[in-house]
Order: sequence, then structure tokens, then C-alpha cells
Amino acid sequence: MANVVVATDCMGGDHGPEVTVPAAVAAVDADPQLSIVLVGLSDAIGAALARAGRAESDRLRVLHAPEVVAMDEPPAGALRNKKKSSMRLAINLVKSGEAQACVSAGNTGALMATSRFVLKTLHGIERPAIAAVMPTLAGRTYMLDLGANVDCTPVELLQFGIMGASLAGAVEHIEAPKVGLLNIGVEDIKGNDTVKQAGELLRASGLNFYGNVEGDDIFKGTVDVVICDGFVGNVALKSSEGLAQMLSVLLRREVERNWLTRVAGLCALPIFRSFKRTVDHRRYNGASLLGLQGVVVKSHGSADSFAFGFAIGRAVEEVRLGLAERIGARVNLLQQGAA
Amino acid sequence: MANVVVATDCMGGDHGPEVTVPAAVAAVDADPQLSIVLVGLSDAIGAALARAGRAESDRLRVLHAPEVVAMDEPPAGALRNKKKSSMRLAINLVKSGEAQACVSAGNTGALMATSRFVLKTLHGIERPAIAAVMPTLAGRTYMLDLGANVDCTPVELLQFGIMGASLAGAVEHIEAPKVGLLNIGVEDIKGNDTVKQAGELLRASGLNFYGNVEGDDIFKGTVDVVICDGFVGNVALKSSEGLAQMLSVLLRREVERNWLTRVAGLCALPIFRSFKRTVDHRRYNGASLLGLQGVVVKSHGSADSFAFGFAIGRAVEEVRLGLAERIGARVNLLQQGAA
Repeated sequence: MANVVVATDCMGGDHGPEVTVPAAVAAVDADPQLSIVLVGLSDAIGAALARAGRAESDRLRVLHAPEVVAMDEPPAGALRNKKKSSMRLAINLVKSGEAQACVSAGNTGALMATSRFVLKTLHGIERPAIAAVMPTLAGRTYMLDLGANVDCTPVELLQFGIMGASLAGAVEHIEAPKVGLLNIGVEDIKGNDTVKQAGELLRASGLNFYGNVEGDDIFKGTVDVVICDGFVGNVALKSSEGLAQMLSVLLRREVERNWLTRVAGLCALPIFRSFKRTVDHRRYNGASLLGLQGVVVKSHGSADSFAFGFAIGRAVEEVRLGLAERIGARVNLLQQGAA
Repeated sequence: MANVVVATDCMGGDHGPEVTVPAAVAAVDADPQLSIVLVGLSDAIGAALARAGRAESDRLRVLHAPEVVAMDEPPAGALRNKKKSSMRLAINLVKSGEAQACVSAGNTGALMATSRFVLKTLHGIERPAIAAVMPTLAGRTYMLDLGANVDCTPVELLQFGIMGASLAGAVEHIEAPKVGLLNIGVEDIKGNDTVKQAGELLRASGLNFYGNVEGDDIFKGTVDVVICDGFVGNVALKSSEGLAQMLSVLLRREVERNWLTRVAGLCALPIFRSFKRTVDHRRYNGASLLGLQGVVVKSHGSADSFAFGFAIGRAVEEVRLGLAERIGARVNLLQQGAA
């Protein structure tokens, strides 16, 4: 396996170095070909390293960044005023080639705006998108966009299809991933004008286009890639998260109803534990910012170390698979085909 | 309680009279003030009545309709060509005053188009919307639109807020229901232009406007009413349904893994049963077509008799609460306030 250097924005997320540093330590311990640059307030990072019983080393370098992008800071402001933030310096390392990927649990809008400004989009891609992997009954499905683009043109949705197919194809080793267009019915006449036109472009694209899919198809695993605009994708993702949380709370309430149900719950503990592991959203942490000249992965802001480790793992995987290059090549190929 | 007559489109849905007729029988048995007109192919309805050990009676009248709207028929075609369909005749009964509500498990688009054409919208309402009630951690939340309107103007979203507040207020006996606007962030600057403008209208409306909510707020029960365009609402609803189904299948797989987990599953049966009853989506069956001059309720197409009974119950409740009149009054009030 190739050597990979990942730049970690240690200050992002709800917990900062307390979460990001232990995750980085565990990641380099698990992968001898991996080095991580810890970017952020050096005092805070040093303290977190010390708590993990470690010091700075060749494979765990610290890069001091005096500024931090707040979670609720407007992206344009962060881009203009926080040129020495941990997020910005981490992305700069990808631009300069000192790192091959950046991982951040910080402000999504700022991460997207800064990545786009510093790294630029791939030739032929209008706007980058955020893609995540979702557990399904059939395995895993990749979904994009999840919030970077609230309004999308048909061409942008087509490009999401190209990028998503590259991602699913590379990570899951599928020759021609099935791409579905999220809609409110399976018939071609359904949906708004943008979606209908995107459907026509996708049908003519040379991608393995399945056609329209509906919300429930995401978790059925009907297709390998689900594409939608960022507004719809964000709502679908967060609604699902909300439902999962509600069901988990309601199930716990049932267990805690009385001593009989508590005993029954104890008996069923192996089932609950195994089930929880299967659907543990932390294992799916790490959304890819696709369409950039470089690998950038966004961790959930509330991620713990275990979850943040999966985001680092995703970044490493995308570097080793040459994902950005694959997307670039596929865009070129389809554009030549269309020309 | 007032006498209510409900017209049931007996042919709609995946199962037709096999489901709708037993549900109607059970509903009139449970509510002595309720009469139902069974609309559809009289032979099929008669056979279903006979299977239920019943015959036509004063409170279970049969109205023969020679045509049936197919589940995949384009709404405009159904409206133009199926003037003697069970759906159309059932809605006609509401128009003529012979019934106060119509319930159908049929083609949603055709039901909306026909209801709108026959009954007309309330004065001041541009487009009707589909609203459903969702279980939440805090109780119940009403959500609209769920698919009738794929593109909405800010004014239409405002009207959804007015209609949703009337619905939640009447059914849940809340003075000033909290209304939230579904968005991809809580800050006012989030979202697309339509949503931002709708937010401004809602803030100035006199409704108890909470502000933006995100997808996970639906199931947290952050607000009493969640409003969104029909595309987003449909995707959110179906994604959640898909996730719930997936979790249910995965949990069953865990139970059936080996004999030990099967025994554990047996022990936990009381928990699972009680949990299943709590989240049983059949108890939430029945989406309201709001903004019409009359009560129309759409049942899930795959509903069984138990679920279809809840849709009938919702229609009866809306008639007794005078929902259409309440919405009309609230629209007038807000328009006077705005003028």
C-alpha cells in the first residue's frame, strides 16, 4: 500500500483535539504507511497528545494554526478573514502536495467554500458535492448531494451522477454502478422540471442509469448511487437520523417500562448489541467532498474518536484509490462521448 | 357527537373492496353516529359485504360506480376520462352534500386533481396540500406538503402553514400550534430563495412561527407543524419509511441468527410487541387533503383493513371538528390582518 499523508483539522467539530487527536493516534498506529499532520492550536494539540501518552513524531507532526473557524461562522467570512485557521492551513497542505487529503469535523459550509477556493474543482465540474455512504438492506449506497448545493441545474445533477459512480465504483469495486435519480415517483413524468431534464441527461450519459428512485429506495439499496440536490439530500439524511434516534429512545423506554421488561431486555442484550453494531452510524462517518482537485472528507461535527477514525480511513482509502483522478477521467470520457 | 356520512372509494388501493369494505363495516359498528356510502363496482362490494356476513343497510349503502381509476393512471386522464369512477362519484357525494367526507386509498395524483376540480379550493388558498401526522418523541407532528405540489411559491408555503396550524390546532386542541419551516439549517440565511422568502412571510403572518427546523426535528417533535414543498416532504416521508423498514428487517435478522438469539428474542417478545404497537405506522394512516371545500382523506395504497379504518376515523374527526371551516376562517383572518 502506498504511503499517505493526511492533514487533520484538529480544531473542528464539537469536541476539537479531545476527539481528533486520539483518532489520529489510533489511525497511524493501525496503518504503518500513514502519516498525519495535526493542524491547529499547538498547545491544545500537544496537551491532547500528552493525554494519549504520545509526543510529536515523524508520522504525527503538529502544524500550529492560530485561528479557528467557528461552527456557525458564515462560510464567506471564514474564507476572507480566517486565513490562518486550522481548516485553511490543512487544506493548504493538500494544495502544496505536503498532504494528499484533508479531514475536518468543522463548519461544512466553510470547509466546502475554502476547499473550492484553494483546491479548485476538477476540469469539467461546475460545483463540488457532498457524498456519504448509507447502510442499506443490500449493502451500501452512496448519496449526493447532501447539502453543498441547495439549487441544482440538470447538468449539475448529471455531474453528481458521474462523481457518485466514480466513488461507488472505486470503493466498492463495481464496474458500472447503478445510478438512481431521487424523485417522488418512478415514472419519467414525475417531479419538477429540473429533475425531469436531469433524467434525460442521465439516460443519454453512458452511465448505468437506473431511472427514478423514491425515498425508500435509499435504504432498500435499489441502486448503488442516489443523486439529488443538496436541499433534498440534506433533509432526507437528517430525517432518517432523526427517525433512527426516535426509535432508539422509544425502544429504550419499552425496556425500562418495568422490572419484567428490564429482565427481558437483559436477555435480549446480545441481540441489541449486535443490532447496534450493524447500524452504528459512526461506522458510516465521513462524507466526501467530490469534484475537487484533491481529497477532502467531512466528519460529523458530533463525532467521537471512533467515528472520526472512520472519516480518516475514508480519506486514506480515497487517496489510495486515486478517486479525484478517476472522477476527472470519467468526466473527460463522458464529455468526449457527448461531443 | 354529530351524525357523519363518509363516502368511501372502495376500489382504490392495492387491495380494493377486500380491505375497504371490512374497514367500513368495522367503522360503522364502532360509531353509531357514522354512516358510510360504499362506492365502486357493486358486485365486488356486495361480495365483500357477504364475506363480512353483512348486507347493504341504511348505514352501509352501496353506490355503483362502473369505472375504476388505475393506481398508475395519469391524473389528467383520470379526471377527463373516468367520470364514473368510484373515486369521482365518491367526491361528487361530498360536493352534493350527501356525504361530508371522502376516503380513498387510490391514485394520489388523481384524487388530488379530481377533488380540486369537483370541490374547489377554499377562498384564498392557491393550492391544496397533503398533510400527514407523524409520531415523534414529544407526541405528534403534522407535516405538509407531502407530494401534491412539487414546486411551491413562498405564498403557498405560508398557506401550508396556515392550513397545518388549523389542522394541528383542531385535532390536538392547541391554541397556537408551533409552525416550523423545513430547511437545511436553523439560521435565517440558510436554504434557497423560496424558503428564505417563505420564512419572512411566516414571521410576519401572526402564526406562532418557530423558525427553521431541520430533518431530525420532525421526529424530535420540535414543532407541531412542519411545512415544506411536496418534493422535499415526499422524499423525507419515504426515506423515513424506508429506514424504518430496513431497521425492522435487520433486527429480525439478528433475532434469527442462531438458536440462542432466537430464545433471547422470545424472551424479549413483550418488548418488541409493545414497541411495534407504539410505532405502528398503520395507526398514522390517513393523509388529509387540505385547502378544499370539503374533507378528503387519502389512505396509503397498501393499507390493510386496520389501517384503512384509521383513515376513515381521521375523516370523521375532521368533519366533526369542522376543519375546512376552521381553515377558511383562519385564512380570512390572516388576510384581513395583512391587508
